[in-house]
This record gives sequence, structure tokens and C-alpha cells, in this order.
Amino acid sequence: MELFFLGTGSGVPSKERNVSSLVLRLLEKSGRTWVFDCGEATQHQILSTNIRPRRIEKIFITHLHGDHIYGLPGLLSSRSFQGGETPITIYGPSGLKDYIEISLSISGTRLKYPLYIEEVEEGFLFEDEDYEVEAIKLQHGLESFGYLIKEKDKLGELLPDRLKELGVHPGPIYQEIKEQEKTILENGRTIHRDEVLGPPKKGRKLAILGDTRYLPKLKEKLSEVDVLVHEATFASEEEAMAHDYFHSTVKQAAQLAKQANVKELILTHISSRYHGEAVKQLEREAKSIFDRTSIAFDFYQHQIK
Amino acid sequence: MELFFLGTGSGVPSKERNVSSLVLRLLEKSGRTWVFDCGEATQHQILSTNIRPRRIEKIFITHLHGDHIYGLPGLLSSRSFQGGETPITIYGPSGLKDYIEISLSISGTRLKYPLYIEEVEEGFLFEDEDYEVEAIKLQHGLESFGYLIKEKDKLGELLPDRLKELGVHPGPIYQEIKEQEKTILENGRTIHRDEVLGPPKKGRKLAILGDTRYLPKLKEKLSEVDVLVHEATFASEEEAMAHDYFHSTVKQAAQLAKQANVKELILTHISSRYHGEAVKQLEREAKSIFDRTSIAFDFYQHQIK
Repeated sequence: MELFFLGTGSGVPSKERNVSSLVLRLLEKSGRTWVFDCGEATQHQILSTNIRPRRIEKIFITHLHGDHIYGLPGLLSSRSFQGGETPITIYGPSGLKDYIEISLSISGTRLKYPLYIEEVEEGFLFEDEDYEVEAIKLQHGLESFGYLIKEKDKLGELLPDRLKELGVHPGPIYQEIKEQEKTILENGRTIHRDEVLGPPKKGRKLAILGDTRYLPKLKEKLSEVDVLVHEATFASEEEAMAHDYFHSTVKQAAQLAKQANVKELILTHISSRYHGEAVKQLEREAKSIFDRTSIAFDFYQHQIK
Repeated sequence: MELFFLGTGSGVPSKERNVSSLVLRLLEKSGRTWVFDCGEATQHQILSTNIRPRRIEKIFITHLHGDHIYGLPGLLSSRSFQGGETPITIYGPSGLKDYIEISLSISGTRLKYPLYIEEVEEGFLFEDEDYEVEAIKLQHGLESFGYLIKEKDKLGELLPDRLKELGVHPGPIYQEIKEQEKTILENGRTIHRDEVLGPPKKGRKLAILGDTRYLPKLKEKLSEVDVLVHEATFASEEEAMAHDYFHSTVKQAAQLAKQANVKELILTHISSRYHGEAVKQLEREAKSIFDRTSIAFDFYQHQIK
């Protein structure tokens, strides 16, 4: 799994930071690509990366502010123009369907691939073979969600010593044993998978939140996630302003990360008032509370172990 | 008057050319700025120029294809966020008002300045003290317009010799004589402005066309304009494809410029299939028919004499 930050600014684009967008590549399944938020010029940012719009299968919108959605119609249209044919499902708050459908229809855009738009409510969103995603309600000027992505636990590794004890020799049969619950060998013996596997590989958890006020009550929900992506629009001293504008400070985000005992915190949605040294100061403020913090920048790539 | 090309590509953005947008600065009246089309990331392109969104007073949309309008909601929102307070009027085809209003309302955007949206029909559009603008109907997949901007003729220069003959000596009275039709001097004498002015200064004419098939019948309407901005999506040999997709070739655009005897032709909306040497070839093809041709590129500035 890899996070690829495309836009890490807040409100309006600047030369340093574009408006919000973040890509999650699920590298295990070749190239599955999910996008979180799609501010204007997300497709332009993609031009400078090796991200392939054809590979996008899901887009999650945290909330409908323009800096999180105005790049959607263009990305969807260009993907069609460039020959994308596989379906996309977009998840987001109520109103998203109207916005997309009207933008596409008024501009005479007919996509060459199926587009599904699902309006989100708090709670379980979907699951597939490998992942389960849940929407978390946040507190912002407009309805805003975070997305909790839970990778399913994977089977442990086959234990060759145990297999040998049972008289099974290495070969294609190993794969077969792993793929089914029980396997009957040529000699008539039945091997139960459970007997020959090591401990299951725990799935990773990842939380990508939209714009929000500091919500300490999220600490249970976010408990021990591998990566928490949290907005940090303002410096620690701007708590009153953060509250007024329904945003968080770096300090608040770091407090939540600490309370939830997450493995890593990545801060994004940085106000354009902070440049250079001021951004380093934001990082120091966060790290004084929660050391395993990074401040995202446009084109920052982060491997999730 | 100055043209400032912000996006000169067609259909989808590329690293070389953004989607359509063109700014006209009416330098005579300090900073009046008009925008023609507003593809996605027009506001991003503006970040690399000295164009000031606050100064934008009119936006003309040629047609509603996404590569000409998807930058509107972002530009309008950011202008408000950055403190723009003066009104903007947007002109464009039917459907534009819905697109803008829905994009702004779904994203919870309340502009801090008045926004007027006027849906355009062929013919006279508006006039003010200095300019008159007319909409020209084109032929494209969606309803598409060109805009003919006619600067009004200006009064000629005062003729000092003639004034001296009439016994008027240089001073603030000169300005007064120019500003009113007749002026009564202290000595009781009446000076009619017409008697003391040289020939009027002819206003310039400028035509900025949206996407269109080759329309030779426009030659009267575009006759002798100072600058014609015409799309040239395809090379000369791609006439059939240009026709199928409701576009023009460089050769067709050059033919129209020649038939209309314009002063200068600027080609834009260049397909991303043409790079480097291929663009030079497009230029040669155009110039072989109409020599006073330029091919626009992103950030190309062109003074109109």
C-alpha cells in the first residue's frame, strides 16, 4: 500500500500546494488505485506522476467544498477521452450525484465507462475480498466524512516443516493446500489448512479524514490504525480560528493521534499562509506531542508497511 | 490591448498546453480584464502571471464543453476567497447559469461579490463607453459562439496650430475643449470641438472564436479585424476528421483569415498530438496561406496595436 499526495493545500491552490487530493495504491493487486478527494487540477497533478487514470476504480469524497470536488468532472471526462473503460464508483455526501451528473450533462460529456455514484452515510460502506471501508462522521461546515480502510487479515505462511512431517513434499500441491480449507492427498490423507499455516497476517488499517474540527471522541474508532491522515489547516496557536472555521490545528491532530495510539500521523490541508520555515515549525509543534508525524507536501509518497 | 493565452490545448490538458482560456487586458482603462473560456486550472495558470483575478470584470464562454468551463467554479470561488468584491458578468450559451449556480451551491460557496450570468444569443451582446461586443454563431457539437469585440472610435487629437489660430493658448482649457462639444471661452468666443480636432482614431476590432468547423461565410463578419483568434485543432491533411469532430484545420483557419483580410491570425486549441517540430509544421502550413499567423502557446502574450 502506498499513499501519494497530489494536493495538500487548503481552500485555494497556491504555487506550492494544490487543493486536496490523495491517491491510495493497493500495490498487492496490481495497480488498484483509489482517490480521496479531487480538487481542481487533480488531473493536472497526475500528469507529473506515474498514476494511471485508467487504474482508478474508486473515488472517495470527504465533503463537497469546492477545493475537494472541482476536479472531478475533468478527471472523469479525461479518463474517458483517454480510453478508460473500466467502471468507477464514487462515494461521497448527498449532493455529489447531482453535481457530477449536471456537470457532465451540461458539458455534453458521455463517459465510455460505467460510473456509479453512491451517497454515503455514517458506518459500513462496502467490502470486497481484500478490504472493508467504513465512513466516519466528522464535524465541518458541510457534512464531512473520514474513511477507515481496513485490509482483511491474510492467511499465514505455509509451514514447510509441518508439511514434511505430514509427508507432503514441496510442489504445486503447496499452493493447492493454501487455497482450500482441506485437501485430500493422492494417498487419501486429508490435510486441513489450519494445521499447516503459521499465524494469520494482520491486515493494515488506514484512516483518511476530511476537513474537521478536533474530535477527541474519534480516538476509539481510530485506535491503533497504521496511518492516520488528518487535516491541520492551522498552527497550534490558532485554536479559536480553527474552531470558527471548522478546522483543526496541528496540535489537535497530534493529540488525537496520540490518544488513538496510531502508528503514524500524516498532516495535510495546510493553509497557504505557512511556507518554508513556518511549515517546519508546524512539524515541530506536532512532533512535540506525537513524534511519528509527517507533514505532507504535493507529490509526497508514503509506503505503508 | 493585450491578449494573454492561458490555455491553448484541446480536449484534455497536457504538460505543454492547458485547456482553453484566454485573457484580454484592455490596458487603456487601468487593468480592465476580460476572460474568454475558463477550462480547468485556469486559476492555476493565473498564479504564474501578473493577471489579477480581482480585475476580472467579464467572462465570455464560447461553449459548454468541459475543457472550456470546468475552471469556472474554482476561479469564481477563489476570487471571492481572496477578497474580490467587484461584480463579474459571465456571458455564455444556455445551460451555463445552471452549471455555475449548481456548482457553487452544492459546494456551499457564497461569493462576496455580485455575479451576473447572461445567456447569449447571436447578435449584439452589450456595449459600454468604450466597447461593443457581438456574439457570432459557430458550428460545433454543442452551441458555440465567437465574440467580436469592437473598440469604439476615439476622438482625434487636438490640433494646436488650429487652436492658436483661434487665439487659444495651451493650458487646462485644451482638455476642456476636448471633453465637451462646444466651449465658450472667457472672451465670449465659442469653440466647437469638431473645428479643432484631427481625424478620429479608429477603434480596433478583435474576434475570438470558440470551437467550430470551417465557416467561410464568416468572412464578411470578420472582415478586416485586427486580430482573429481561431481554433486549429488539426493539421491541414485532417480535414475529414476536423469535419467529423466539428473542428477546423490550420489551413481552413488560414483561409478564413485570408478571405476576411484580417490583420493578424492567432491559432489556438491545438491537439495534444502535435509537439515540437509538428507544431512548426502547422505554422508553416498556415503561413503558406496567410503569412501573418502565429500559433499560440500557454503564456503567450500578444499586443494589439
